[in-house]
Amino acid sequence: MTLNRQPIPVFDAVTKVVENVTHIDTETVKLEDSYNRYLSEDLTATHDVPLFTRSAMDGFAIRSADSGKGAAFTVVDEVLAGSTSDYELKENEAFRIMTGAELPKSADTVVMFEQANIDGDTFTIRKTFDAFDNVAMQGEECKKGDIIVHKGSQINPGTVATLATFGYAEVNVYRVPVVGVLSTGSELLEVSDELERGKIRNSNTPMIMAQLERIGVHAKRYDLEEDNLDTLLEKIEKMFNEVDAVITTGGVSVGDYDLLPKVYEKLGAEVLFNKVAMRPGSVTTVARAKGKFLFGLSGNPSACYSGFELFARPAILLMQGSARAFAPFVNATLGEDFKKPNPFTRFVRAEIDFVDGKVISKPSGFNKSNAVTSIARSNGVIVLPGGTRGFEAGDEVQVMLTDVTSGVSHFSIRQ
Amino acid sequence: MTLNRQPIPVFDAVTKVVENVTHIDTETVKLEDSYNRYLSEDLTATHDVPLFTRSAMDGFAIRSADSGKGAAFTVVDEVLAGSTSDYELKENEAFRIMTGAELPKSADTVVMFEQANIDGDTFTIRKTFDAFDNVAMQGEECKKGDIIVHKGSQINPGTVATLATFGYAEVNVYRVPVVGVLSTGSELLEVSDELERGKIRNSNTPMIMAQLERIGVHAKRYDLEEDNLDTLLEKIEKMFNEVDAVITTGGVSVGDYDLLPKVYEKLGAEVLFNKVAMRPGSVTTVARAKGKFLFGLSGNPSACYSGFELFARPAILLMQGSARAFAPFVNATLGEDFKKPNPFTRFVRAEIDFVDGKVISKPSGFNKSNAVTSIARSNGVIVLPGGTRGFEAGDEVQVMLTDVTSGVSHFSIRQ
Repeated sequence: MTLNRQPIPVFDAVTKVVENVTHIDTETVKLEDSYNRYLSEDLTATHDVPLFTRSAMDGFAIRSADSGKGAAFTVVDEVLAGSTSDYELKENEAFRIMTGAELPKSADTVVMFEQANIDGDTFTIRKTFDAFDNVAMQGEECKKGDIIVHKGSQINPGTVATLATFGYAEVNVYRVPVVGVLSTGSELLEVSDELERGKIRNSNTPMIMAQLERIGVHAKRYDLEEDNLDTLLEKIEKMFNEVDAVITTGGVSVGDYDLLPKVYEKLGAEVLFNKVAMRPGSVTTVARAKGKFLFGLSGNPSACYSGFELFARPAILLMQGSARAFAPFVNATLGEDFKKPNPFTRFVRAEIDFVDGKVISKPSGFNKSNAVTSIARSNGVIVLPGGTRGFEAGDEVQVMLTDVTSGVSHFSIRQ
Repeated sequence: MTLNRQPIPVFDAVTKVVENVTHIDTETVKLEDSYNRYLSEDLTATHDVPLFTRSAMDGFAIRSADSGKGAAFTVVDEVLAGSTSDYELKENEAFRIMTGAELPKSADTVVMFEQANIDGDTFTIRKTFDAFDNVAMQGEECKKGDIIVHKGSQINPGTVATLATFGYAEVNVYRVPVVGVLSTGSELLEVSDELERGKIRNSNTPMIMAQLERIGVHAKRYDLEEDNLDTLLEKIEKMFNEVDAVITTGGVSVGDYDLLPKVYEKLGAEVLFNKVAMRPGSVTTVARAKGKFLFGLSGNPSACYSGFELFARPAILLMQGSARAFAPFVNATLGEDFKKPNPFTRFVRAEIDFVDGKVISKPSGFNKSNAVTSIARSNGVIVLPGGTRGFEAGDEVQVMLTDVTSGVSHFSIRQ
């Protein structure tokens, strides 16, 4: 039993995780199944956008040379969106044209309905129009061959629209990792079990499954029949055969009955770290075995929650090539005193609000590592740097936005 | 054809939508299917948390009265997590105890392993321990009957953990609305169609389906065989029978071939507004018929995108009772000049980044209402108030965070 593990700073721990990520394989999915996946190749324009020079307004297409104060026009043809006209305009003739319709070659500008005095099939205008007023030019947004978004981008609704525009009925993406979740601890009951003296219900497995779902990853749930080394080792070896990454909760402390350190040893796993200078969750351990991550999160719900967000979430997104794998850290005003200093970085579950454009954060309730209810009220985590001083309400602190689907490109914690 | 619709401010338009929301019915779902749903009743604690007074550390449980500098103890029993002991400690006796285990009644404090000089089954300590040091007291986090989160809260991973803790294998939530999506416009091709002169592929339907998926709503896709009034009216009547809300794109302008205004009339719909003082998407229309919303979004992709985020998204979340239905607005530094003033509020698709805790926003590319590729690069929308002045790089502006799963309680736009 080694009591004296050497704690490493949170930033260093995250860095060790990042350095050990390997990309998962790729696959082809249908456009309609592509939302929230990560592109495994650059998305390239298959044609100019706009595809053809078109009217940006409902109005009359004319030759700009014919325009001027009081100029009168006769409407000779009509071009609806989706239709075209090859009619050659003569002097002071006009097309009636709708937004999105191809601008006929013989016209070069569009007079909006609101800019015309209309009288049956004729109209007059009050000013000169320049060529290409109220017109969207072919290729003004992008050219065929342009890279629109890069490999590693999350496919958001705008990406879906872009893929559709360019005729990509299918798209190449990284596969979504299968992540196995297993909670250890002989005190654990299942959700539908009656309470027993000395025991509590397992909340970590369903919580982590929801944290995975939040990033679009479906978890595979495992349960432990008996809480002993042989059973646990066998179960984790089975998980390694079935999943791309393993998350366990509990059993990572230094107590005699904390089995994970022994499992890591038996597996021949490389332990990246087993002590992080943070509260809660200092015993959080990340290891690698058989080319896969093994996240050993604390059994305390709050520690488990932030351990997942700090280490497992970015790793799982980076496995999918994500270019924005980290939760944003944003400055916020602290809503409550934390007078007692702590040498370790503290993570406090917080309710974040946006008031007058400013980010306000207040602790979301009871704040101990074993707290569970405060997580339910939180949409972020206040970060209190470790050191010799406490913090007061009104201090500017950092907040990690956990309830954000999009992230940022760098882990930017101040500690 | 009425050209002179009266524009209303964005805030007023959103308010009109909010005022017309009615809650959808409720249902019971399994805990494992509850993530991202909205609670239809308060979540109440079914027992104290902690459920019993327990050790917060691995160590030795003793009677605090026996503690003091140099006091020696003999270990007489062991209490693992999940087990209990009714042994009555005598003077200077101790239990070995693990984190999470019930504190036996005859002990009242815990000495951490690190605080003890251990020698076989005995140990000495260096100081006096107060009652309940290193102990988590029954009910210190919450009491049986406490409301943990209120009706209307989104079920986040922490809520899932809380439900599991309290033995809720099922939970009552609002039903997820079924939303029908239909794009109009005779210029539209499908994603797998070859391009034709004057036509473009339909990007709005897949985009909106992804925007709906982002808020956990599955869309029902409709397609129009022919772009005329009878076909459209028949299709929308069919949609009304099958869905809880209807979203259309295109056909809301004032042109002769814009059919939606005629459909609203035929349906006897109440048009809440059909002109909003915003760019792009000033023609965005929201109507109510048969107790259901009809969102008439612009056919221009960028206008369609922000119209959805401003009006459809909060309405669909509010139908589910959401207490945080609006996208957060946060102050950010503008990264580019927008010198030309505009009387209308402008929405500019933007790439938001979080640098040193500050929010930085820059336009994500080509910025016209018909732009599609810039949406793919955006995770937010810059809001430029309408008026007589332009904006310069470095100005503080508001940004609507569109790529955020959690929201805020009030629509707080400055205009």
